[in-house]
Amino acid sequence: MAKTKGRVTLPSEGNFLNETKEMMDRWGADALRDSDGTKLPEEVKALDASVYTTYFVARGHNEFAKEHMEECQQMYLMSLRVTAVKDTVEIPFMEGYFGQQVAPDYVHDCKTWWEVMDRTSGEPVALDSWDVDEAGNIVTVRHALPFHEYTVSFLVYALWDPTQMYNHITNDWGDKPHEIPFDVRQPASGRFAREYLIQWLKDNPKTDVVRFTTFFYHFTLVFNDKAKEKFVDWFGYGATVSVKALEEFEQEYGYRLRPEDIVDNGYYNSTFRVPTRQYLDYMDFIQRFVAKKAGELVALVHEAGREAMMFLGDNWIGTEPYGTYFPNIGLDAVVGSVGGGATLRLISDIPGVKYTEGRFLPYFFPDTFYEGNDPCVEARENWLGARRALMRKPLDRIGYGGYLSLAYKFPEFVDYIEKVTDEFREIYDNIGGSRPYCGLKVAVLNCWGKLRSWQSFMVAHALWYKQTYSYFGMLESLSGMSADVVFLSFDDILNRGIPDDIDVIINAGAAGTAFSGGDAWLNEELVTRIRRFVYEGGGFVGIGEPSAAHFGGRFFQLADVLGVDKELGFSLSTDKYFTEEQPHHFLREDRKTGFDFGEGVKNIYALSADTEIGEFSDGEIHLSAHPYGKGRGVYIAGLPYSYENTRLLLRSIYYSAGQEDRMKRWYADNPLCEVHAYPETKKYAIVNNSGDAQKTAVYDGTGSCQMLCLEGSQILWGSM
Amino acid sequence: MAKTKGRVTLPSEGNFLNETKEMMDRWGADALRDSDGTKLPEEVKALDASVYTTYFVARGHNEFAKEHMEECQQMYLMSLRVTAVKDTVEIPFMEGYFGQQVAPDYVHDCKTWWEVMDRTSGEPVALDSWDVDEAGNIVTVRHALPFHEYTVSFLVYALWDPTQMYNHITNDWGDKPHEIPFDVRQPASGRFAREYLIQWLKDNPKTDVVRFTTFFYHFTLVFNDKAKEKFVDWFGYGATVSVKALEEFEQEYGYRLRPEDIVDNGYYNSTFRVPTRQYLDYMDFIQRFVAKKAGELVALVHEAGREAMMFLGDNWIGTEPYGTYFPNIGLDAVVGSVGGGATLRLISDIPGVKYTEGRFLPYFFPDTFYEGNDPCVEARENWLGARRALMRKPLDRIGYGGYLSLAYKFPEFVDYIEKVTDEFREIYDNIGGSRPYCGLKVAVLNCWGKLRSWQSFMVAHALWYKQTYSYFGMLESLSGMSADVVFLSFDDILNRGIPDDIDVIINAGAAGTAFSGGDAWLNEELVTRIRRFVYEGGGFVGIGEPSAAHFGGRFFQLADVLGVDKELGFSLSTDKYFTEEQPHHFLREDRKTGFDFGEGVKNIYALSADTEIGEFSDGEIHLSAHPYGKGRGVYIAGLPYSYENTRLLLRSIYYSAGQEDRMKRWYADNPLCEVHAYPETKKYAIVNNSGDAQKTAVYDGTGSCQMLCLEGSQILWGSM
Repeated sequence: MAKTKGRVTLPSEGNFLNETKEMMDRWGADALRDSDGTKLPEEVKALDASVYTTYFVARGHNEFAKEHMEECQQMYLMSLRVTAVKDTVEIPFMEGYFGQQVAPDYVHDCKTWWEVMDRTSGEPVALDSWDVDEAGNIVTVRHALPFHEYTVSFLVYALWDPTQMYNHITNDWGDKPHEIPFDVRQPASGRFAREYLIQWLKDNPKTDVVRFTTFFYHFTLVFNDKAKEKFVDWFGYGATVSVKALEEFEQEYGYRLRPEDIVDNGYYNSTFRVPTRQYLDYMDFIQRFVAKKAGELVALVHEAGREAMMFLGDNWIGTEPYGTYFPNIGLDAVVGSVGGGATLRLISDIPGVKYTEGRFLPYFFPDTFYEGNDPCVEARENWLGARRALMRKPLDRIGYGGYLSLAYKFPEFVDYIEKVTDEFREIYDNIGGSRPYCGLKVAVLNCWGKLRSWQSFMVAHALWYKQTYSYFGMLESLSGMSADVVFLSFDDILNRGIPDDIDVIINAGAAGTAFSGGDAWLNEELVTRIRRFVYEGGGFVGIGEPSAAHFGGRFFQLADVLGVDKELGFSLSTDKYFTEEQPHHFLREDRKTGFDFGEGVKNIYALSADTEIGEFSDGEIHLSAHPYGKGRGVYIAGLPYSYENTRLLLRSIYYSAGQEDRMKRWYADNPLCEVHAYPETKKYAIVNNSGDAQKTAVYDGTGSCQMLCLEGSQILWGSM
Repeated sequence: MAKTKGRVTLPSEGNFLNETKEMMDRWGADALRDSDGTKLPEEVKALDASVYTTYFVARGHNEFAKEHMEECQQMYLMSLRVTAVKDTVEIPFMEGYFGQQVAPDYVHDCKTWWEVMDRTSGEPVALDSWDVDEAGNIVTVRHALPFHEYTVSFLVYALWDPTQMYNHITNDWGDKPHEIPFDVRQPASGRFAREYLIQWLKDNPKTDVVRFTTFFYHFTLVFNDKAKEKFVDWFGYGATVSVKALEEFEQEYGYRLRPEDIVDNGYYNSTFRVPTRQYLDYMDFIQRFVAKKAGELVALVHEAGREAMMFLGDNWIGTEPYGTYFPNIGLDAVVGSVGGGATLRLISDIPGVKYTEGRFLPYFFPDTFYEGNDPCVEARENWLGARRALMRKPLDRIGYGGYLSLAYKFPEFVDYIEKVTDEFREIYDNIGGSRPYCGLKVAVLNCWGKLRSWQSFMVAHALWYKQTYSYFGMLESLSGMSADVVFLSFDDILNRGIPDDIDVIINAGAAGTAFSGGDAWLNEELVTRIRRFVYEGGGFVGIGEPSAAHFGGRFFQLADVLGVDKELGFSLSTDKYFTEEQPHHFLREDRKTGFDFGEGVKNIYALSADTEIGEFSDGEIHLSAHPYGKGRGVYIAGLPYSYENTRLLLRSIYYSAGQEDRMKRWYADNPLCEVHAYPETKKYAIVNNSGDAQKTAVYDGTGSCQMLCLEGSQILWGSM
């Protein structure tokens, strides 16, 4: 393979010029970046590479912030719950919060902006029944109802940027100043952000790409009184709140938001919640503001002849790369962290930017790069996991972060990344921006739709959670599957119908969540449209508790389509006859290992003899299919990510759409292998996703088949 | 032990006189009964024993029934669901039902008495939009909404008593006539039931006890078109329905019931459903009627100088032994089938009768009594299981059913039952009708309360169900525990408060069921009364999904009391800090084996550091305790029946009430042993519940302790 160059970004640092040149050469890097805690020295900036510079808009300027403490960012917090045992109750509302991070807002009138909630009745407490002791941070409720629980929803000022706080505390930075986040919605801060950037661009002529990290509002990250994480929502709009924002919202939308609209019982409108109209309005309001203000900054960057890149994280809230207003920002690029296939697609699918970049793992930090550890293990896992998705929709660039000097000490790692970067460029060039072959078009259906593309079931940026991995596996599987994937919301279906080109709808998640849909399923129009879609030949794949909302004698509102329902206890008196697995079934034709449904779902039973049971154990169904008109419903109890489960999902998709005879095109029989074809460039790739050599039958676009052997993790390119 | 006699009922049969005498002697029987398919011959009736004769009120009189087919019993049935794919839809509503059991009622106006439901909207279809084709048993719906599901709720006549039908089909009785159930609410049937009994009493002078099997209405038991069980609800009021009943209901209650009030989405008001006001009214209506009519028959029995005994089963619906009207029937006795401790207490706790009798297992039928099988195994299991409960509240009599001649062929079985009958009489005499020592008073709280004492979680008379055993174990454990057990409904608490003498409240069951309570928990008065109760020193033990109803940021409405809640996905963003099991805890002090929580409940987490975690595995809590004022909440994820779990429940009860220092009174350390004390008769019994010899420390009423050895299943009696 001829040595190639480009599309790779490296961190660099001081006193590392020659090694930087060497690494640039080996990895073919054409861009250099700074990292948290490092700055690029001038001699490095002079190298033949683009220079990325991290830029913080709304923190890191304490000289300004300290003079404008009234423009600090704000948040609504919910106090702990206090049970009244007599008719007065005291709520020490700051208890459990970190006084160095947040301080109660006593500037604005508490009676106007705070709310005391009776959580037992669900009603706010009358304003004249409570008072605030500002010295003690205590709310006293009078005329309390004994044994009701009370909370205070109170406004705070945010005194410390949570990312800097986390690094500060973790790395013991001692008396290093706490970076105060200010709110560009406020007049002085808005001006400052603009003026500072103008000057900064002048002061940093070598910077080619301004890497915004990020814009204005950090995702919600609240610490407890022991300075440990208390609440983290990577999607949370918590830090966007301010009195000014709420007043402007009221002006624009004609109604006033209550604190409870933000606090939401202490759930703070997690993406797992079926969103309220108020919260959707509020998100829209924030997005419009962020797009406008960020657009102004990006315009300044362009005026200075530089590119603007946004880091997808930290202060990304309100940018919503899949939202309506994102293109208005005018960004050149987005860079984000790649944990696997779904997080890669989350970046690479972002519309309206010139290029995307993924920061791969491991970060060059001492927690991985220490003597005796092999950083290649994490690198290989990360690369192979993400590569599947790259084959579908490549990032335009890849990169690494941390201390290059650390990585340099691990020659095997340097060798491995050299292969990775070469392989990345080979993939990129072979695909050449063309659309890969997609056997079918799949819509993932939930409350969020396109806005949260590739973002379902994510807590704290796709960490493993017991409650999510059995659903998130579906996204991870799809991220590298030869299917066209779109994200559809219930409102999309209600407002515009099911798009004609959709072959299969997937609905996955736990009952009551925004991903399953909760009470959205009580909408007759929604269920009848999906029934019609399947009846006329579409496919419906339900994972976990699809269409779950107990009504009319059904828990799954599409039980008629799926052929299964969940026994809640109410129909135990009805005999359940159907418990036999089908001896052979398309869905498990190539299954060699036992099934793994992850957390699964209990008490699923078949409604009739028509239900084709694919797996029955422990007195319940975990896999089944059911004919419905010309289409089918397929039920899967859970789908943790694995190559076998990816294959199961692929089979479910084809089977549900009644197109199982079309599955074996650009297809590898061995579940550890996949085939990606690019008709526009007349190329195809046979990929071994595993680290071991594999033998597989490979089917071309006409269904012709040949046996092939692949080395561990090999990609075999061919021409049509 | 001196040979004792009495309190035992045996079946007998023809040509078995001498053996009957021998068996009466060996087992000390003082009563003889016939069985299904046997009649007592005159020479047996002449023996020195009471004679029980099975009596059917509302079936077995086809000569009458055939002449009054218009007085057949009726039922509401729900058709299968049919999806409209255009604007007319045909519903073949008898599909799936057994034409020999039920026939549509075309006598009464369908438009008046039937209902066509749009199950997708939940609304009934307008009367002018549907028609019935009586020849084809088809309802045609016009102006149907495509892809809505439709059902028909239709009235049928019941043509065949389901118990006789079951026996008929199972035993292949060929052209033996089908016994037609008639409805004593109808004029001719009411007269007939009365007159026939008067004559029957004259014709059967040797009968001492009329064993009603039972009165008027069979529990709901519906067969499918293959003559297999389709729906069985041992508590179901399905067969009580008739046009006449519905008309009389309307007159008495001032409103009309809809078919849907009975059909209930096809759940037919299972006891797992939170009962509607309409259904409670209807039950009350039926109970009053049954008590009145049954009372008239019982009076006739008494006038003839005989005793009236009711079989708790078959046509028992509406008698409700724990209901308000049951004492009005004036029965002398109730007899029922004993499957274990809870079903024993279900019989022995019945108030207002002179005596109770339990029919023990095995039934003397060929399915158990065949060559090569040892019927002692089932007998021993049944006896030891039920004996615990007998020690708390004994039946007054025990008995057996089936063919005595079959049992006679198994001498070891005869020996074993001889020991059982002697032991029963010894227990009975030692207790002498006195109240056993109860350490604490426990209330089982659910929607049904007293009315369904010992009847929670039962499907088809306490068969094992995957969805119930983890809860039913709680009842079985309590049935033999030295605690006073009462059953309390939510309405009891709302109307009359928590009785002063209750120490501990137990709430157990799956979310949304009548046993957990569903939306009953949204009542502020309910939760605040229970919070106050615990705060002031009471105990609350929650099993499974106690107080579950998602509201105000909590799934468990008593999460504050329990110190745990269930993660539904909405609060994944909140850090869960508390996952450490307490190294030592009262709740698991004597636990030697691993825990068995049965089906358990997923995703339970601790709310604060105050929660004492007893068991944590698989990322979730299954056992915990939490202080709340002077009392405590205890959480258990599930409690399948076992001696170890009985001990865990006992510990939970004492710990929740803060009375753990009082537990070791009349107590055995070894979980396989229990101590029962009878202060009024100054006796106590140390019981080995296991079949093997056991060593145990035994504590008397002052807490003094001694070590003892017991033989397998031994009861060691002592005097105070």
